[in-house]
Amino acid sequence: MLIRLAYDIQFELPAETAMVALLNVHPSRTHDLLEPDELKTEPRLNVTSYFDSFGNRCVRFVAPQGHLRLSSSTLLQDSGEPDEANWAARQSAVGDLPNEILRYLLNSRYCEVDRLSSVAFELFGHTSPGWARVQEICNWVHNKVAFNYQHARPTKTAMDVFTERIGVCRDFQHLAITFCRAMNIPARYATGYLGDIGVPVRLPMDFSAWFEVWLDNRWWAFDARNNMPRIGRILMATGLDAADVALTTSFGQANLSYFFVVTEEEIPASQTAISELSIGQRL
Amino acid sequence: MLIRLAYDIQFELPAETAMVALLNVHPSRTHDLLEPDELKTEPRLNVTSYFDSFGNRCVRFVAPQGHLRLSSSTLLQDSGEPDEANWAARQSAVGDLPNEILRYLLNSRYCEVDRLSSVAFELFGHTSPGWARVQEICNWVHNKVAFNYQHARPTKTAMDVFTERIGVCRDFQHLAITFCRAMNIPARYATGYLGDIGVPVRLPMDFSAWFEVWLDNRWWAFDARNNMPRIGRILMATGLDAADVALTTSFGQANLSYFFVVTEEEIPASQTAISELSIGQRL
Amino acid sequence: MLIRLAYDIQFELPAETAMVALLNVHPSRTHDLLEPDELKTEPRLNVTSYFDSFGNRCVRFVAPQGHLRLSSSTLLQDSGEPDEANWAARQSAVGDLPNEILRYLLNSRYCEVDRLSSVAFELFGHTSPGWARVQEICNWVHNKVAFNYQHARPTKTAMDVFTERIGVCRDFQHLAITFCRAMNIPARYATGYLGDIGVPVRLPMDFSAWFEVWLDNRWWAFDARNNMPRIGRILMATGLDAADVALTTSFGQANLSYFFVVTEEEIPASQTAISELSIGQRL
Amino acid sequence: MLIRLAYDIQFELPAETAMVALLNVHPSRTHDLLEPDELKTEPRLNVTSYFDSFGNRCVRFVAPQGHLRLSSSTLLQDSGEPDEANWAARQSAVGDLPNEILRYLLNSRYCEVDRLSSVAFELFGHTSPGWARVQEICNWVHNKVAFNYQHARPTKTAMDVFTERIGVCRDFQHLAITFCRAMNIPARYATGYLGDIGVPVRLPMDFSAWFEVWLDNRWWAFDARNNMPRIGRILMATGLDAADVALTTSFGQANLSYFFVVTEEEIPASQTAISELSIGQRL
Repeated sequence: MLIRLAYDIQFELPAETAMVALLNVHPSRTHDLLEPDELKTEPRLNVTSYFDSFGNRCVRFVAPQGHLRLSSSTLLQDSGEPDEANWAARQSAVGDLPNEILRYLLNSRYCEVDRLSSVAFELFGHTSPGWARVQEICNWVHNKVAFNYQHARPTKTAMDVFTERIGVCRDFQHLAITFCRAMNIPARYATGYLGDIGVPVRLPMDFSAWFEVWLDNRWWAFDARNNMPRIGRILMATGLDAADVALTTSFGQANLSYFFVVTEEEIPASQTAISELSIGQRL
Repeated sequence: MLIRLAYDIQFELPAETAMVALLNVHPSRTHDLLEPDELKTEPRLNVTSYFDSFGNRCVRFVAPQGHLRLSSSTLLQDSGEPDEANWAARQSAVGDLPNEILRYLLNSRYCEVDRLSSVAFELFGHTSPGWARVQEICNWVHNKVAFNYQHARPTKTAMDVFTERIGVCRDFQHLAITFCRAMNIPARYATGYLGDIGVPVRLPMDFSAWFEVWLDNRWWAFDARNNMPRIGRILMATGLDAADVALTTSFGQANLSYFFVVTEEEIPASQTAISELSIGQRL
Repeated sequence: MLIRLAYDIQFELPAETAMVALLNVHPSRTHDLLEPDELKTEPRLNVTSYFDSFGNRCVRFVAPQGHLRLSSSTLLQDSGEPDEANWAARQSAVGDLPNEILRYLLNSRYCEVDRLSSVAFELFGHTSPGWARVQEICNWVHNKVAFNYQHARPTKTAMDVFTERIGVCRDFQHLAITFCRAMNIPARYATGYLGDIGVPVRLPMDFSAWFEVWLDNRWWAFDARNNMPRIGRILMATGLDAADVALTTSFGQANLSYFFVVTEEEIPASQTAISELSIGQRL
Repeated sequence: MLIRLAYDIQFELPAETAMVALLNVHPSRTHDLLEPDELKTEPRLNVTSYFDSFGNRCVRFVAPQGHLRLSSSTLLQDSGEPDEANWAARQSAVGDLPNEILRYLLNSRYCEVDRLSSVAFELFGHTSPGWARVQEICNWVHNKVAFNYQHARPTKTAMDVFTERIGVCRDFQHLAITFCRAMNIPARYATGYLGDIGVPVRLPMDFSAWFEVWLDNRWWAFDARNNMPRIGRILMATGLDAADVALTTSFGQANLSYFFVVTEEEIPASQTAISELSIGQRL
């Protein structure tokens, strides 16, 4: 399956502003790219690329006062398979985890593992360790938290989600990540493209958030918001939580004026004459 | 100057527990070591050493149920000079910071940069950028926050310190770090040994927390708790905040039963017959 | 001046639900009523009226499952004068306050006087006591906090407003009330009608929140949201903060389906043929 | 049974300070007093007595700079019976509650009913309404929260207790009160004397906190901290939570220098020659 990925994000900057963008496909998917994956800026800026401590590809630049447009379009080859499920995947004892995985058990900005530790044991202490426990956590969060764009706010933590029971996709994942860590299952936050491929009801194309857990010596994707295997989840970045992987971080004021995302199956021209485009807005 | 560093930390473990310890001298001081700096465990355990994403030296092991003792003693050569001060040190524009320094401007577990951003601008927006601004931040925190061991708690954040105005050394540093980041000055948390060398009033030897800021292309030590240059600050670990550099992290219950720290000038035998020892307790 | 007051509030109730409504004009304005001020319910319910501990007139009833409509229309005589200002109004020493006024100095659900006490002294300790100090507090809140309906949430406290600097009318008042109490000025929360009478730009008619402070042995209205004297502020209820004076409290689920408020000058028929009506929505 | 009640509380005041004290026996126990119950002040001050909106007897005065001593000793007749238990006591529908009881269902400073509402339904929704449900709530809080004087802090709310699982007596009651209100059971905070009468292990005499719930048309004492019927609970004041019933509130700095409480059975002289005295400290 071929997936077209594109975005067009525009800002008004009241003053010169340094920015960092995590808008590239994750290095783990580089070999699937059929077209270059480069951030274009208008005006053309001196853009530097680097990898952060999580291995994400970041770009940085200093944008002048005025209008700024960030855009890209690329084509990626995908298996077309839904998220893998492996009910036999086992949870490692903490002592057997690789060194670099231990950090995914700790507190982070949006994931107060310490404050939700007792609650997690009460809710999930009786479940079977491993995949089943993570799935129980996803089920709980999915069933208990209502989705609502109007209740998004940048300071909402896992604790807030637990008490308010309402939020957007990132909020669902923060709560599930926190519960996993409290149960000694390494968990990290993931952002990327997630369109409507294979979903009966056609949803807007969008960036999205999900999370990954470490079982059987590798990372697996889970999604407490959708809580079902999805096709076409294209990873962009991972981190301890949303604080590490903002799509754009501006060190100064930056007013978003336009936001457009494409992520859809691209059918070769011989099969279809028109590619449908729709608009995705990510809060 | 020679500084003797030693600790003896003991736990009762109700069950087998995986632990990580950041109890070594920081790699940046390795060349100053005159004796080996190795964690000893009783019982003797299989200990693995690694570096975390901040470059700290970590050791990990799985301790059996029962009594656990972690200890070490080493000797380090030190300049004997107080913390450097450089009022001419300039603050870089964010766009000029090295890639790996950018993370020290973001939110972290104990440092809610977003929530304290307006406050920081109101308090420090009028001060001169660079060293003077960091010093103003330290002065403010030092003058406004009272030290009190009885008000320590593991969930206390910079926001809590700002409103409660009371805390222990780590709390002072978290608030100062948050203010620095809000003013676009990279700041990180530091832990290490800090004794009473050169201090008129003899204080107990102890581990301590301070912080570092990035000015003129390097890190400089600041200490909003003591707010004066000190001799014998021996770095052990740095991180975004205290969440990254706990002296010991146990993945399971571990009840502290004994805690003893030595950090003092070692006078060669020809000069003094008796080495005074005192006890430091770190909350 | 004659002011027409009316509302039409509708709910869908999934089950029988007890409700309390504070939808009457405040007892202090009863003598200004030219028409009865009675809550009508559809279906017709057995409605009981009582006064709460703040002296507000409350009605309570048990509504059956299904559609519920609460409505009223009344006419009130008003001076047509803007809010009084009295720069000479003095602040009493706490020891001279009447017994029943002391409670308005304490912490309450949305007003963390203890947590914002140091901040209040730093910001307003240098101002002249009395009216000028309250006005300085209103100016600060008005200038520092941005109004935005999309950032309303029922759990937002004065502390949250202080850090987020964004909110709706009740949020402005909670922060100002908290600062006043921290400075030992009794302050209470007020809700009522506030239309656009005398305001150049025509705003929607609405319920609104403001606050009152005790100076010179009486209560005076202040409004940190609008921060200017207004005409036609018709008081409905007062309390320590918004927790005490919800327009409606339902002890069970109640889904708001319609909300309409009228508060406007009524011109006698001889003067105008058509009464303009507009719609007000209160979050 | 005769119970001797006495206290001796001393402060150092850096400046003249207005104070309010809730240090009298509750009006509901006035008829049991065998000696006058009057607050004595040293120096002698002009003390005014009044009743607050909860019906508590309050005294207020303005104390000069310097040393302040508040003391009292009185004798009270008590049934000597332990707290009543009535497993048949039923919970009223909200619609049947008396008007003045409705306020005890709402949010208050330390009791975030809104934030803990979902949790309460998950934990207690399956229990039998009425006495059994309140007892289940007490059992849960008693079993899940550890008592520890060192974790007291004045800003700790029910939410904090739920996540930290540690606290002092007031913290236990705040969490239990919040759960009760979330389940539509009116609950209020109570303070008073609670000694060691009838308790096998002799505990220090002390003021204490418990709570009361409204069942079968009256208030009943519950105590999530001790969670067993006790003898000699002498009520002083009730309120929504601890914010309403501080033993002393000073509007200015007041440094506690001495604290002593007596509450013990007084054996007539013919029976015993020596009255044992012990010391109670309330944090």
